[in-house]
Amino acid sequence: MPALNRKELRLVWSDLSQDEQVGSFKKLSAIEAGRFFADLDAREQAKIILTLPLKERRLWLRALDPDDAADVIQETHEKERAALLEMLDMTTRSEVIALLTYAEDVAGGLMNTRYVGLRPDMNVDEAISYIRRRAREQVETIYYIYVLDHEQRLLGIASMRDLFQAAPDQKVQDIMKTQLITVSEHMDQEEISHLFAEHSLIALPVIDTDGRMKGVVTVDDIVDVVTEEATEDIQKIGGVEALDAPYLEISLMEMIRKRAGWLTILFVGEMLTASTMQLYEHELAKAVVLALFLPLIISSGGNAGSQASTLVIRAMALGEVKLRDVWRVIKREAAVGLSLGCILAFIGLLRVVIWQGMFKTYGEYYFQIGLVVAGSVVGVVLWGTLCGSFLPFVLRKFGLDPASASAPFVATLADVTGLIIYFSVASALLRGTLL
Amino acid sequence: MPALNRKELRLVWSDLSQDEQVGSFKKLSAIEAGRFFADLDAREQAKIILTLPLKERRLWLRALDPDDAADVIQETHEKERAALLEMLDMTTRSEVIALLTYAEDVAGGLMNTRYVGLRPDMNVDEAISYIRRRAREQVETIYYIYVLDHEQRLLGIASMRDLFQAAPDQKVQDIMKTQLITVSEHMDQEEISHLFAEHSLIALPVIDTDGRMKGVVTVDDIVDVVTEEATEDIQKIGGVEALDAPYLEISLMEMIRKRAGWLTILFVGEMLTASTMQLYEHELAKAVVLALFLPLIISSGGNAGSQASTLVIRAMALGEVKLRDVWRVIKREAAVGLSLGCILAFIGLLRVVIWQGMFKTYGEYYFQIGLVVAGSVVGVVLWGTLCGSFLPFVLRKFGLDPASASAPFVATLADVTGLIIYFSVASALLRGTLL
Repeated sequence: MPALNRKELRLVWSDLSQDEQVGSFKKLSAIEAGRFFADLDAREQAKIILTLPLKERRLWLRALDPDDAADVIQETHEKERAALLEMLDMTTRSEVIALLTYAEDVAGGLMNTRYVGLRPDMNVDEAISYIRRRAREQVETIYYIYVLDHEQRLLGIASMRDLFQAAPDQKVQDIMKTQLITVSEHMDQEEISHLFAEHSLIALPVIDTDGRMKGVVTVDDIVDVVTEEATEDIQKIGGVEALDAPYLEISLMEMIRKRAGWLTILFVGEMLTASTMQLYEHELAKAVVLALFLPLIISSGGNAGSQASTLVIRAMALGEVKLRDVWRVIKREAAVGLSLGCILAFIGLLRVVIWQGMFKTYGEYYFQIGLVVAGSVVGVVLWGTLCGSFLPFVLRKFGLDPASASAPFVATLADVTGLIIYFSVASALLRGTLL
Repeated sequence: MPALNRKELRLVWSDLSQDEQVGSFKKLSAIEAGRFFADLDAREQAKIILTLPLKERRLWLRALDPDDAADVIQETHEKERAALLEMLDMTTRSEVIALLTYAEDVAGGLMNTRYVGLRPDMNVDEAISYIRRRAREQVETIYYIYVLDHEQRLLGIASMRDLFQAAPDQKVQDIMKTQLITVSEHMDQEEISHLFAEHSLIALPVIDTDGRMKGVVTVDDIVDVVTEEATEDIQKIGGVEALDAPYLEISLMEMIRKRAGWLTILFVGEMLTASTMQLYEHELAKAVVLALFLPLIISSGGNAGSQASTLVIRAMALGEVKLRDVWRVIKREAAVGLSLGCILAFIGLLRVVIWQGMFKTYGEYYFQIGLVVAGSVVGVVLWGTLCGSFLPFVLRKFGLDPASASAPFVATLADVTGLIIYFSVASALLRGTLL
């Protein structure tokens, strides 16, 4: 492979084998390598670090900020972590260890501990000079400056713009904002991302139960979080356990393991349809024509349920719908389900009548059959819609993740009950004729 | 209703009726109202502005930055827009009109035109003083400073930190970064959000074809975009046309309209199953027991297809999988589909054998029936998986949105072919016995 520069390498990186990646990385000049490394995500950085000889590992690990180092260390296997931690200088090591105690997906696990703090009695000129000095060190964030008392408790926040707008002799405590939005160390990342979106923030301070400042979560981390959470939800709705890794990088065994579980649960649940059909075997034998519409009827219930549950799940995730909105949602969904059912029922009836006209497929009682199809479709679509919209609330109420009420699960629920609706309508309308 | 302060009002806002919202807003003091207004999204701001008397409308509209004013105006009906535009001062009006020419979801429609530009020959001290003066005006972004030539062409970018780290007499052109990431005015918002995520940026400059700077897209806009795009994808995967509005705010008519279209297409497609079953009506009449497993067989194909298509769609959206990866994906999915099919087939066979043992439900040829179920499940799951993973590539190749290969659509495709697989396997294995 020819030697690539930093930008070319970035473009082709994910297409290279591990060996090619390491080889190309080594061919970069020191400065290029440094910038390239900084642009990789934690997983990629961990991969590189672990392939390098020990002496170089230390170099690269020490080049990272504590929160990035913590991310890299979290991406490695347990047995490698102690060795990596040893390579950090003492201060960074204790910072990283502190960060590693947090789960990856809470404020503590996302935050950066290197921010600029000011004393409240500094004046604006002193503050700006201080910031200029601190900016030469590896301070991550100078978007906002945090005003702290002698016990690290957060008193207020000032932005660079606030400082610039003030007279040089004003005291920091006079210009700082005191109405603050803060997050606790254990706040879940999804909640944090909602705060960022709602208030259009660049950074959020993380404080402990005593009001002491622990670190800062910056919005670039949150963009990743929002994407990650959306991906998880999408995968759950599609009936897959969250993959937690890029699609092409998962091993086949891992892929099968994650998908077999859900697929098996659905399969076992769907076996109830075989038992349900057993109850109506008699009717089926008498009127085989009923079997012709089975897939059509039950799939319309499943599709209607999918739609409803997808919309409600997403609305819940975005905070548009809360638990107390359940009856409001059910009422809307009942109206929508009934309307959609009638539209489809009409099309279904039309189909039976037209086919009979063209091909004489359904025999003497074709119109009653058409009515059975239409009536069942109304019932099945209405019921599927209600199931699909209600299930997320039930799951949320029991503290479970509503996205698990994925479309396939709702479809399975709708299938079994749909069969009962179908054959009941058939028995009622075809009594004395076909049945 | 009692008078609420700004924070209380923010919490209950979405639960209030329009009249209550307007009433509570008017009860806020001028300063509280201003801060409250700034925190609302464009849709809410538009609602308030349109309910206010004309004189107050002007006040509120003029308080907005051009890009926010453009958003608000875009949220109002065509007939209201001219009147609102008239309320702006001439400079802002021409800026807003320029912004309104862009589609909402491209760089031009997201950008803010108020950024700080420097001449390359300024020195750092002059630059910082200049920035302090500009910060007093309504400049949105001072995270990055843009170095422009006399024709507004972008030469380089410097951050506040870069300026602070430099010696006061250095020239701006010596410290600015020249390797720049920029976006064109027409770049789609989803692409832009990928750039932000990949490079951990706070802001991106927008330039026209001559390299002239037009505005800046900031990351807080992008957080909204990422959520919006994810929501659209989720809704498409669940078989719904994108809603474009919070769930509880859409009218019933609108909801039905958006859902009926997709549901009808699926229903009409699924009618093919009725025609397909017609071909096998003879076999069904001879062996009614075959009907018992219909829902089970075809739903397993649909679920497997859902899984596959969901994963591939999301991987494509995140850039993890590209068009040229198609054969690699197909090979993986074939292996996964075969394995999953075998797992489910084994469970299916077990079910038949156990039920026969306990209830003697299936008669003399129960084992052959079990084999029919098992064989069909393997075929149907493998085929469903391949369909589900291939369809997004086909759609993408034809320039369509892969998320439209939503789970229900794939399920429908898998249903029709699944029937053929099922009855073919049945004919083969039950020839001479039940058939």
